[in-house]
Amino acid sequence: MSNIEILKKEFEKRKEKIIQDYCTFLKFPSISTDPGYKQDVLACADWLVDYLRKIGLTVEIWPTSSYPVIFATYLKAGPEKPTLLIYNHYDVQPVDPLEEWDTPPFEPYIKGNEVIARGAQDNKGQCFYTIQALKFLLEQEGNLSVNIKLCIEGEEECGSKGLASILKEKESELQADYLAIVDMGIPDMVQPVVTLGVRGIVTMDVELVGSNIDMHSGSYGGIVYNPIHGLVELLAKLHDPKTGKVTVPGFYDNVESLSEEERKLYSHEFDEKKFYKEFRAQATGGEKEFSPYERSWFRPTLELNGIAGGYSRPGFKTVIPAKAAAKISCRLVPNQDPEKIADLVVDYLKKQCPQGLKIGIQVHLGHGTSVRAKLSSKIVEAFKKAYEDVMQKPCGYGMSGGSIPIAAELAKISHAETVLVGFGLPTDCIHAPNERFGIDRIELGFMLIVQALKHLSLV
Amino acid sequence: MSNIEILKKEFEKRKEKIIQDYCTFLKFPSISTDPGYKQDVLACADWLVDYLRKIGLTVEIWPTSSYPVIFATYLKAGPEKPTLLIYNHYDVQPVDPLEEWDTPPFEPYIKGNEVIARGAQDNKGQCFYTIQALKFLLEQEGNLSVNIKLCIEGEEECGSKGLASILKEKESELQADYLAIVDMGIPDMVQPVVTLGVRGIVTMDVELVGSNIDMHSGSYGGIVYNPIHGLVELLAKLHDPKTGKVTVPGFYDNVESLSEEERKLYSHEFDEKKFYKEFRAQATGGEKEFSPYERSWFRPTLELNGIAGGYSRPGFKTVIPAKAAAKISCRLVPNQDPEKIADLVVDYLKKQCPQGLKIGIQVHLGHGTSVRAKLSSKIVEAFKKAYEDVMQKPCGYGMSGGSIPIAAELAKISHAETVLVGFGLPTDCIHAPNERFGIDRIELGFMLIVQALKHLSLV
Repeated sequence: MSNIEILKKEFEKRKEKIIQDYCTFLKFPSISTDPGYKQDVLACADWLVDYLRKIGLTVEIWPTSSYPVIFATYLKAGPEKPTLLIYNHYDVQPVDPLEEWDTPPFEPYIKGNEVIARGAQDNKGQCFYTIQALKFLLEQEGNLSVNIKLCIEGEEECGSKGLASILKEKESELQADYLAIVDMGIPDMVQPVVTLGVRGIVTMDVELVGSNIDMHSGSYGGIVYNPIHGLVELLAKLHDPKTGKVTVPGFYDNVESLSEEERKLYSHEFDEKKFYKEFRAQATGGEKEFSPYERSWFRPTLELNGIAGGYSRPGFKTVIPAKAAAKISCRLVPNQDPEKIADLVVDYLKKQCPQGLKIGIQVHLGHGTSVRAKLSSKIVEAFKKAYEDVMQKPCGYGMSGGSIPIAAELAKISHAETVLVGFGLPTDCIHAPNERFGIDRIELGFMLIVQALKHLSLV
Repeated sequence: MSNIEILKKEFEKRKEKIIQDYCTFLKFPSISTDPGYKQDVLACADWLVDYLRKIGLTVEIWPTSSYPVIFATYLKAGPEKPTLLIYNHYDVQPVDPLEEWDTPPFEPYIKGNEVIARGAQDNKGQCFYTIQALKFLLEQEGNLSVNIKLCIEGEEECGSKGLASILKEKESELQADYLAIVDMGIPDMVQPVVTLGVRGIVTMDVELVGSNIDMHSGSYGGIVYNPIHGLVELLAKLHDPKTGKVTVPGFYDNVESLSEEERKLYSHEFDEKKFYKEFRAQATGGEKEFSPYERSWFRPTLELNGIAGGYSRPGFKTVIPAKAAAKISCRLVPNQDPEKIADLVVDYLKKQCPQGLKIGIQVHLGHGTSVRAKLSSKIVEAFKKAYEDVMQKPCGYGMSGGSIPIAAELAKISHAETVLVGFGLPTDCIHAPNERFGIDRIELGFMLIVQALKHLSLV
C-alpha cells in the first residue's frame, strides 16, 4: 500500500470525529472586524487553545492590544531538523448580506461533500486540516519529523494589528527556516499549484458631510450639495474609464513590469466562459492593457468595497442625507508602500472634494506589503512534491491577487523562506454568502501537510 | 374681546385634551412606504375614522388597491355656500437612521412647546389642527358656514397610488369650489405666507449587477467591473459639475423662465448665514446660474436619495459586491411631464451602463406634476386674510420646492381652485430624525382654519 493509500485509510477511520470537531470550530461567530462579536472571537480562541494542548502541542497565548495570537509548538525534532513556521487564522469575515445565505452562517450545513458555513474554507477549514495532520502524526508516530511553530491569529480579516504589534517582542520565538502560509488555493480539483505571492493591501473609510441633519429633497433639493452626488462624483474620478487605470497621481510609481520569463511561468489562460458560468460575471474590469490574471496578480488595484448614504430599503424616502460614505481598498504589488499609497489617495480625494461638503478619511491600521516566494526554496520544493503526491499530477506555480497583510512582516521577522499553500477553490464563496469547503479537500489538505513535513525532513 | 382672543381662550380650555389626542394619533407608526408597517397604517386609519365620526362628520372609507382614503363631509351649509375640499394625509415617512433620534419616533416626547415624533408636523400635526377647528365649530355653533369635504389619504409619502387609482370613480364626490392642501409651511414665526405652488415629482430605483455572488476583491479585483465603480461613474454623469445642471438630454425642455413680475413676487432673500447656523450646510448645490430659492422653487432637480452596495458597517470587508443600487428622484416644474422625464433619465442611464454590468431600473407609480395656484382666487384671499388675523402681519406669497404628488390630479378632478397652506417651519426636521412641531402652531393652525372658513363663507 502506498503512503497516500495508507493516509486515505487513516483519514477515513477518523473522518466522523474530524467533521464533528470541525463543525464545532465553525460554530463560533469569530467575526474580528465587528466589535459586537468580541466575546465570540475570544471563545473561539479558548476552544482552539484547548484543542491544540490536547493533541500534544505546547501552547502559548500571546495577548495583544486586541485579539490573542495562539502560538503552538513542537520543538523536539532535534536541532539538526528544520523549523517550519505555519500561519493560519481563526477569525472570519462578516456575514452580510445575511438574507442571501441559504442556511444560517454559523450552523454548519453538510450537503453531500460540502460543508456550508462562514469560515468553512477561509481559514477555519484550512487551519483545521493542518491541525489534523499534526494530530495524526503525533498519535501515529509519537513525534514530528520537523520542528513546528504554529501561529494562529485572530485578526487576519481586519488587518492583523494585534499580531503586528507584538512581532518585535516575539522575534526570537518566531525564528524559523521556513514559513508556510496555509490560506491559499488551487484553480480547480485537477491542477495542483504552489502559490508564490500575494498582493499587499491598504484600506480606508471616506465620509462626506453636507449638513447636520438629513434634509427634505423638495425643500432643499437644488440648494445644498447632496453628499451622495459629491461622493459619486469624487469616487468616479478614481479611475480613467478609457484605460481602466487608477488616476491617483503616483499610484503606479515603482510598479515593475513582468519579465518574459515570468510571463511564461504564470501564463495560465483565463477561461472567460467558465468564469461566466460560475459567477455570471464578465472580465471587463481593471486596466485594459493587461490580461485578467495579470490584472489580478501583478497589477495594483483600487476597489470600492462599500458605499452607503440616504435611504436604501424598500420604498422611497425623499431625503438629502446629512452624509454619505464609502470604503476603499488598494491591492499592492512589490515596491508599493501601503502608507505612501494611502497618502496619495487621501491627498487626491481631499483636493477634489466639492465645495460645501466636508470630507473625512480614516486610513486603517494593519495594511501590508506584497509577498513573493523564491522559486528555488526548499519549502517550495517540499510542497510541490506533496501536492504531486496527493493530486497525482505535476504541480504548477501560481499567484494570488488576495492579501495576507501580516505575511510580509512575518517572513521578515522570522527570516524564513516563504511559501503559500492551501486547498481553496474559486467557487468557495469566501467573503460571500454560502461560503463552503469540501470534505474531500479536508482530506487532501490533511495529506498535503503530512507529505510536506516528510519531504521537508529529508532536505 | 376680538375673535382671535376668543379663539385663544377656547383653545386654552381644550388644550390638554387636544394634545392627548394628538399624541395618540402620533403613536401609530403609519409608515406607508415600508410594507412591514401595513397593520399600523390600517390601525391609524381606523382610529381616525372613529375620531371624525365622533365630532359629527359623515365618514366614508374608500378602499383602494393599497391603503384606504378617508372621506369625511359636512354638506349642510347650504347649496348657496361654497364647498371646500381639504386635503391631508395620515401616513408618515420612515424613521431611518433610527440611531439619530434622541427619543423613540413613535413615542411623542413633549419638550416645552415642542412635540417630537415622526409625523409631528408632516402631516399628522397639520391634519390634527384642521380637525380640531372643525370639531370646535361643530361643538360651538352646531354647524359649519361652508360645505366641507375632508380627504385624508394614507400614501402621500410614497406616491398616493391608492387615491390616484380611485379619482375617476370618485369624481362626483370630489367636486368642490376650492381645494386647500394643508401640508405646507411658513418661513419663520413672524412672516405669514400663502403657498402658491409645489413641484412635481418622479422617483426610480436603479440597480447594477456584476455577478451572481459577492466576490473577493483580492482574487477578482482588477478582473470584474465592480458594480459600485459602475454605479458611481454612471450617477456622476447625471450632473455637469461646472454648471450644476442635469445632463440628461431634454430634461429642461419646456421649462419656462421666470417673468420679471414673478421674480419680484417671490424675491425672498435666502439667508445663507441663518441656513448655515440651522443646518451647518452651505447653499452650494444645484444650478449655479440661479439663486437658492429659484433653484428650489422654479427649477427642476435630480437628486440621489439613497445609495447602497457592499459592506458599510463598522470595520472592513474586502468584497466586490454582486450589485449596487441607488434611488433617484426628480422634482419637476410646470410643463414637465413626470413620465416623459422618467423615460429620458432611464434612456440616458441605460445607454451609458458600463460593459459587463447589467442595469435594472424601476420607475415608481404615483408621480405627480407641479401645482400652481391663481393669485386672484377667493381661496387664496380667504387664507391670506386668515393668516393676517392670526399672525397680525401682512401676508406674503411663497412657493414650495416639495411635492404633493396627488395635488395636481386632485385639483383637476375636483375642478377646484387650489391653495397650499400650513404652519410647517424649515426647522421641523420633516423626513429626518427628531421631527417636531410646536404646540403654539397647533393653536395657530386651529385659528387659521376657523378664520379661513369664516372669510370663505362671506365671499
